[in-house]
Amino acid sequence: MRPQTGAAMSLASRKLAAVWPFWASLQGYNTSKALSDVSAAFIVTLLLIPQSLAYALLAGLPPQLGLYASIWPLVFYALFGSSRQLSVGPVAVLSLLTASAIGPVVKAQLASPLEAAVALSLLSGGFLGVMALLRLGFLARLLSHGVIAGFTLGSALLIILTQLYPLFGLSPQGVTVWQLLAPWLGPWPKVQGFALSVGLGCLGFFVVTRLLAAKWLRPMGRGSVERWILRLAPLVLLLTVWALSYQFNGPLRGLATLGPVASGLPAWHWPQLTPALVEALWLPALSIALIGYVESLSMGLALAARARQTLHPNRELWGLGAANLASAFSGSFPVTGGVSRSVVNAEAGAETQLASLLTAALIFLAAAYLTDALPFLPKAVLAATTIMAVWGLLDLSIFRKTWRFSPVDFGSLSVTLIATLLLGVEVGVLAGIASSLMLILYQSSRPHLAELGRLPGSAHFRNRLRHSVELNPALYLLRIDESLFFGNITAVTEAVSRAIAERHALKDVVLVFNAVNHVDYTALHQLSLLEQSLASAAVRLHLAEVKGPVMDALIRADFFAHFSGSVFASTAEAVAALEAKTTPVHT
Amino acid sequence: MRPQTGAAMSLASRKLAAVWPFWASLQGYNTSKALSDVSAAFIVTLLLIPQSLAYALLAGLPPQLGLYASIWPLVFYALFGSSRQLSVGPVAVLSLLTASAIGPVVKAQLASPLEAAVALSLLSGGFLGVMALLRLGFLARLLSHGVIAGFTLGSALLIILTQLYPLFGLSPQGVTVWQLLAPWLGPWPKVQGFALSVGLGCLGFFVVTRLLAAKWLRPMGRGSVERWILRLAPLVLLLTVWALSYQFNGPLRGLATLGPVASGLPAWHWPQLTPALVEALWLPALSIALIGYVESLSMGLALAARARQTLHPNRELWGLGAANLASAFSGSFPVTGGVSRSVVNAEAGAETQLASLLTAALIFLAAAYLTDALPFLPKAVLAATTIMAVWGLLDLSIFRKTWRFSPVDFGSLSVTLIATLLLGVEVGVLAGIASSLMLILYQSSRPHLAELGRLPGSAHFRNRLRHSVELNPALYLLRIDESLFFGNITAVTEAVSRAIAERHALKDVVLVFNAVNHVDYTALHQLSLLEQSLASAAVRLHLAEVKGPVMDALIRADFFAHFSGSVFASTAEAVAALEAKTTPVHT
Repeated sequence: MRPQTGAAMSLASRKLAAVWPFWASLQGYNTSKALSDVSAAFIVTLLLIPQSLAYALLAGLPPQLGLYASIWPLVFYALFGSSRQLSVGPVAVLSLLTASAIGPVVKAQLASPLEAAVALSLLSGGFLGVMALLRLGFLARLLSHGVIAGFTLGSALLIILTQLYPLFGLSPQGVTVWQLLAPWLGPWPKVQGFALSVGLGCLGFFVVTRLLAAKWLRPMGRGSVERWILRLAPLVLLLTVWALSYQFNGPLRGLATLGPVASGLPAWHWPQLTPALVEALWLPALSIALIGYVESLSMGLALAARARQTLHPNRELWGLGAANLASAFSGSFPVTGGVSRSVVNAEAGAETQLASLLTAALIFLAAAYLTDALPFLPKAVLAATTIMAVWGLLDLSIFRKTWRFSPVDFGSLSVTLIATLLLGVEVGVLAGIASSLMLILYQSSRPHLAELGRLPGSAHFRNRLRHSVELNPALYLLRIDESLFFGNITAVTEAVSRAIAERHALKDVVLVFNAVNHVDYTALHQLSLLEQSLASAAVRLHLAEVKGPVMDALIRADFFAHFSGSVFASTAEAVAALEAKTTPVHT
Repeated sequence: MRPQTGAAMSLASRKLAAVWPFWASLQGYNTSKALSDVSAAFIVTLLLIPQSLAYALLAGLPPQLGLYASIWPLVFYALFGSSRQLSVGPVAVLSLLTASAIGPVVKAQLASPLEAAVALSLLSGGFLGVMALLRLGFLARLLSHGVIAGFTLGSALLIILTQLYPLFGLSPQGVTVWQLLAPWLGPWPKVQGFALSVGLGCLGFFVVTRLLAAKWLRPMGRGSVERWILRLAPLVLLLTVWALSYQFNGPLRGLATLGPVASGLPAWHWPQLTPALVEALWLPALSIALIGYVESLSMGLALAARARQTLHPNRELWGLGAANLASAFSGSFPVTGGVSRSVVNAEAGAETQLASLLTAALIFLAAAYLTDALPFLPKAVLAATTIMAVWGLLDLSIFRKTWRFSPVDFGSLSVTLIATLLLGVEVGVLAGIASSLMLILYQSSRPHLAELGRLPGSAHFRNRLRHSVELNPALYLLRIDESLFFGNITAVTEAVSRAIAERHALKDVVLVFNAVNHVDYTALHQLSLLEQSLASAAVRLHLAEVKGPVMDALIRADFFAHFSGSVFASTAEAVAALEAKTTPVHT
């Protein structure tokens, strides 16, 4: 009986693996993979604990929420997502978006910061779930690189400006670059001497490790060692200062510390959501869902391609949606697949999401047993950690690159960056989405069209703008280089209408369909109307080089029922036939 | 001196004609054209007076506003627009949208109906002006035929249902099909006996003329006579009943009539616009601007193509914007280029917009001197006029056509129709726009891609889904049939990533660029990232058949700085070179 049961189980297991990526990743799991996963989990946990605390502070929330956001969301992503190496949890940019979204809600007394954060996770998880259900993942593809780069750069600058406050023992204020810069432009705020020293010390340590790593290790070709030193440096700093704090069993000379961290574990609660809260938070939640998905998906795709694994974009929506809902129900704030933590996870050798499950378990233990040790962490050092983490996002070369390549990309980069800095992150996201959308609509409405002429002495027909060709005044040959649909058909009818209005000798119009793979109903309808209009003007419309599937569609739609023109196999054949008709033949 | 002045004037005139379509249309104006314009103006005026009154009532406004909307807007369109035959004024669908928009505003006591209508004209004129300034006319191309047909059909049904009320001497109620049908579904409302007789008489007259025209004239090949009879029939009916009313010098047996029409002429006023009014009306005004522009542009393009004239889509925005602002400042409601009136104008022989200027003057005279005669017009007859006017919009064959052609078009038709009928015209427009937008975004994100294989025994490479071809497991040939930009590049990187994840023998990926006319910065960036990911997976990326301008862009953007693959002139060359590299050669 046993082999039969084994075979049945194996079949069930293979079926399960086909629909459940997590199960698929566990096929062929062995001790070597397990060791890799375990070591990756320990390294990620070490980096994650201070980062999670810092990001919770950045979001304007109690520090333990950072830990909570690194427990259940990891578990749910592991079960529902499709990447093997993505590490989900709080990330800097989403924390900034969270801070910006919950500020006004708290001010209007609609909810406490914690309630607002939970509502935000719930709504963005909901949006991701709806997008997964309706298979709307393609929407996230629609943000141009200029927009994403502008938004990332703006957010990184805002985060660094925000973190200068705790670095110097002050409380941050505002969400735009003006509000954040204002105190430093007037008479300087009252900076605590000792806080300033610690802050400058941290910044100095940060600069020195960066310089040392870049000067000594990179020229020696030790890029990976360099990267690990840069990654672990904040941890060393943190542990040193924390050990000092702990040694003295209290705050060092009035230095602002994390303060009491509520001990205990995330409890599952049904989140409260009032209509007023939904109205105030739906748009920020949608921004968080989109930005989070874009960041996570691009990281996931890159990691999957390197490891020759498959990432399912729609499953990523389910995974991130589940992670955010888990965050909401366990009382925390929005999460996504982070770039830096995922890279660390992958480079530390993670083979499957078991690494993330173990990470979640380790952070669970930290939340349960380390809370007594955490209050002595100086905020200045956490701020230095955050600054080091986002410093890598400050890629200024993008300005030069896009400027050289195209003014449109440079423009959308600049607009998004300026909107993010001056009007806040939310307006930045929305301005970016709106500009991307307008660009897509504009490009959709302008198909590539080429008027063709004869290459002298040949039967070849080429774009008149790129080649020196002969034109026949009685003939208009228009090659359509894209599939036709309602968005771009008007450009074709306008081009033909212009031609017949301008060229009074015109008798025949030939649309060359060799690049048309599909024609929708609107395009077909407009072509019929065009044919009728041309007939009233004594001009005939013809088609050439129509592909099989397009021809089938035209026939099915009765396009030829009232069509007075011809369909030619090639442009050359069309020209030969039409010129023979109009030019008197001398025999 | 005279010839010189003449030449100078002629040069100035030619320069003016190049930038001002109205001036261009007057070049070569002669007595024959003038006679055509004058006769067209008289015919259009005769049809326009009752129609304008009826459409004002449909919009829920005092009847004289219909006349006002047919005076200054015509003048401003003539001066700023570019069509020679388009006739601008109140149209049925915009009147329905106006009624639906001003209803809630009046109910909330934000403004009187007249103030709301003026604000609506001002806002839609403003939107059209802004769209003209930013050259956003392409936005109007983005409504699919299914959406427009669904909206038009739904509006026509709603208009007919609304008009049944005055036809039977009742007051209409509601804006959705349920609200309009409700009174007829329960115990019948108290219908005035005489009103009912007149209403049924009008409907009977309407049906009879339609049947007679269709039965006798169409089979005789007298299509144009048939059309004129159908057009003039309501006028005959109207004049008959009006003459009877006037004869008796009062309402016929309690039959509801138009009532007092304020005498006098449209006065120019600065429109009042409060923030609350803007908030309530901006979305309906945007719908009115878009729907009005789409209707007017499609009509204008068809008329221009028939007459071999040029229509400038952006100038049409200016023309319609100016017409709506003129409507607002002269105290009336939104206007656009109407289909039926423009066809009448064109078929009656209008050669230039002088016909519209004369029409405006004639309606000006009517508003000044006919107002004493108008009050006796029975509302039931005006309702019959409107029903006859919109009957032609009830094209039910569109269901069969789109169903046969594509479920997507059938779906957007049905969704828009149902939303329009059940949720009202505004929701209908918005649902249509949203569904068109989603479709464009979806299509943009899915470029046509084809994996190529070798036609056995040849050097030709074709789509593996359409031809029986040989595939080399070490080689992935992907032909990209569209220009690459941020919206569709992810589809390419996903296809390649899937291929390398699924085919473990894969060593080389060739992207065939023969249909790529343009590559934007995001696409370039993603291709670079893909190349790096593939390199980590020991797969090389190559390009083939790259067009000149695209190659220039790639070089300018330093794409080849870190590129480890090759660029091949043709797919055949790429395959030959890559197979020679990997296959051991036996000598």
